[in-house]
Amino acid sequence: MRYAVLGTGEVGRTLAGRLVELGYDVTLGSRTKDNPVALEWATAAGGRAHAGAFADAAAAAEVVLNAVGGRVALDALRAAGAEHLAGKVVVDVCNPVSFEDGQLRLDPVESDSVAEQIQRAFPHARVVKTLNTVNCQVMVDPGRVPGEHNLFVCGADDAAKRQVTELLGEFGWPAERVLDLGGIRSARAVEMLLPLWFGLFQRFGHADFNFEVRRAR
Amino acid sequence: MRYAVLGTGEVGRTLAGRLVELGYDVTLGSRTKDNPVALEWATAAGGRAHAGAFADAAAAAEVVLNAVGGRVALDALRAAGAEHLAGKVVVDVCNPVSFEDGQLRLDPVESDSVAEQIQRAFPHARVVKTLNTVNCQVMVDPGRVPGEHNLFVCGADDAAKRQVTELLGEFGWPAERVLDLGGIRSARAVEMLLPLWFGLFQRFGHADFNFEVRRAR
Repeated sequence: MRYAVLGTGEVGRTLAGRLVELGYDVTLGSRTKDNPVALEWATAAGGRAHAGAFADAAAAAEVVLNAVGGRVALDALRAAGAEHLAGKVVVDVCNPVSFEDGQLRLDPVESDSVAEQIQRAFPHARVVKTLNTVNCQVMVDPGRVPGEHNLFVCGADDAAKRQVTELLGEFGWPAERVLDLGGIRSARAVEMLLPLWFGLFQRFGHADFNFEVRRAR
Repeated sequence: MRYAVLGTGEVGRTLAGRLVELGYDVTLGSRTKDNPVALEWATAAGGRAHAGAFADAAAAAEVVLNAVGGRVALDALRAAGAEHLAGKVVVDVCNPVSFEDGQLRLDPVESDSVAEQIQRAFPHARVVKTLNTVNCQVMVDPGRVPGEHNLFVCGADDAAKRQVTELLGEFGWPAERVLDLGGIRSARAVEMLLPLWFGLFQRFGHADFNFEVRRAR
């Protein structure tokens, strides 16, 4: 499987690095094809790692991971090109956060979500929202946090969600810990978890935590 | 300690019933003093249980629990009377939810919360947000759900939060499972958890679940 990871920030590099470790060909996509961070990452990560513009990365991939900031996700995916997303699984891990006076803000929120915006803008992409509820180190190494803590998947395409759940399994998340919340509208719920995540991050002073859904039966 | 529980719905009756079991004097408050549900509850719950209008309930109490729906909370508390809330701990357990076409909606959301609205409207009340992240049966009987799952407290008044944490201990929540998120603004984060709670409720088909925050250290 060939992956594109859009976004050269810590989230993108962490996901891309783990995919290379797993033996996949990965292109780390950025706005420009000569992004020095992406080129440096590709050089350090070895022969299966490549760098390229968003469109090059998406064109070369069978699965696209959106790891740019939520406020610029649509721009990045437009640059990647609808023709390079059509029919492909697009894993959206972003959150539409910004900070105002040190306070986390979300936009869109409640009446919409980034994942729905992406699915509307690219109706032929098979969008799956996941991983946005944990820090990127935990995304690819859930053993950093004790317990049977959970991830969520949201999306209209059940086969795409199964495929993403298998990938999460390779990251270390057993399938029984991946809770399917339903269609892409349910992405609102997981994006709205961010303020609580951030409040706990501030309280604990680190990001090695996650939520485990406990239930009676 | 004398408690007022505002709201005669399932949440209010469940909280009021548990408080009577714990040996407290409780007035179940409603819009009118002859609310048949409240009168029936008080008769069934025994000598420490009373029914009354919001203002009567709040006037008689040292601690007020707001268990009306989030969309009518301010109206109920205005009816209770600022003079009967001043200096008292007001425990806000409500969520500002409504349903449109079967979909849960929140208002206010993200830029405000019901708890902050209450604190602004009644600046002399000592507002503590808690319990709104679990079903009312779990509120008063956390053992319905396995594991060391958590509650949150939010509010400006540390002494009020300690007092509420002690009450939660009487409900069955050890203090180490009650996470203090900070000031009343942090109530936004716990009110915004509701869409995820509701998605899981739909998935599981029951409400005996809760979130356990797992962390590395």
